[in-house]
Amino acid sequence: MAPIYKLTYFNAMARVEPIRFLLSYGNIEFEDIRISQDDWSKIKPNMPFGQLPLFEFDDFKANQSIAICRYVAKQVKLVGSNDIENLEIDAVVDTVSDMRAKTVVFKHESDSAKKENLKKTLVEETLPYYLERFEAFAKSKGGYLAVGKLTWADIYFVAYLESMCTLMGKNLIENCPTLQNLEKRILNLPGIKAWIAKRPVTAV
Amino acid sequence: MAPIYKLTYFNAMARVEPIRFLLSYGNIEFEDIRISQDDWSKIKPNMPFGQLPLFEFDDFKANQSIAICRYVAKQVKLVGSNDIENLEIDAVVDTVSDMRAKTVVFKHESDSAKKENLKKTLVEETLPYYLERFEAFAKSKGGYLAVGKLTWADIYFVAYLESMCTLMGKNLIENCPTLQNLEKRILNLPGIKAWIAKRPVTAV
Repeated sequence: MAPIYKLTYFNAMARVEPIRFLLSYGNIEFEDIRISQDDWSKIKPNMPFGQLPLFEFDDFKANQSIAICRYVAKQVKLVGSNDIENLEIDAVVDTVSDMRAKTVVFKHESDSAKKENLKKTLVEETLPYYLERFEAFAKSKGGYLAVGKLTWADIYFVAYLESMCTLMGKNLIENCPTLQNLEKRILNLPGIKAWIAKRPVTAV
Repeated sequence: MAPIYKLTYFNAMARVEPIRFLLSYGNIEFEDIRISQDDWSKIKPNMPFGQLPLFEFDDFKANQSIAICRYVAKQVKLVGSNDIENLEIDAVVDTVSDMRAKTVVFKHESDSAKKENLKKTLVEETLPYYLERFEAFAKSKGGYLAVGKLTWADIYFVAYLESMCTLMGKNLIENCPTLQNLEKRILNLPGIKAWIAKRPVTAV
């Protein structure tokens, strides 16, 4: 019998939406637990490293969103077919994560002048730098970010894209036709389409 | 025939020493290419995302140090024996990486008052928070950070420890006897011992 997965996070897409996308892609049911800030202060001391997400099944608990994504990707058969393919996929995933981390710095900046500067650099330089390269990857790899077929790297990227665009107030892939096609294809995968139709609506 | 691995980085341990440790553990020869700042400005535009390390073999090029470590760990048989074990290992590795990233923020802070404050918080709060938990992991898992046996999570941690201690000017595991034992065991593994004896000496 398949284990019952419990995924605990805040009421947001953020770093957990890629996990939800991957579970949904595989039609794996999961408890999508979204806690309030009040509950958070109560449970924080019991978290492995004082942070969310927490992913649980049977007696097992895991933190770290990318590690959880990789585990789920294996269950839903979205990994590579050998070590070299998995290296290529892992490198893309960590690079997408680096790109997103730069937008999180912007999100948390409280000084409004600094925030405006950060936004300008991100939107005009940093994010286009990454996205041009991802566009070139996809163009050279049959429309996918790694190894020429659908993998969890594609789902990881697309699951972050919506909240990143909302955060930056811009369609970040407006000049990237191959990534636009990739996004369309991922959002039309039956499990993911069904997830998006039923998920709680949040801005990021 | 085994491929010839080329690893390009600066003349430092930093985020590449875990890769060098893992290759050395498995007695895998590699070209340890250390470039100067002058050379860096010349090759930077050719790097996949404008950063090092670069890991190459045959016609394959990869960026992202953790992804490279995981690939090498598979070649030297330091991964888990199933998906759940690998999730546990991956989560420890990403948490060690998070911990180290906080010391890198300190390293790059140029304002001396802010730097001093960051150091105090790191040495008195942040790093002990992580290290107490890693100590408890190791204590409950037969002396290892994950799954009760030697894995690449242990080597990843120990390979970072020296430069982290140098950076913070402190033996960070002085109150962690299980981690001290783990460090000793890793540094005495024949391939790693031989690597340390022959590697170029750098501070961090």
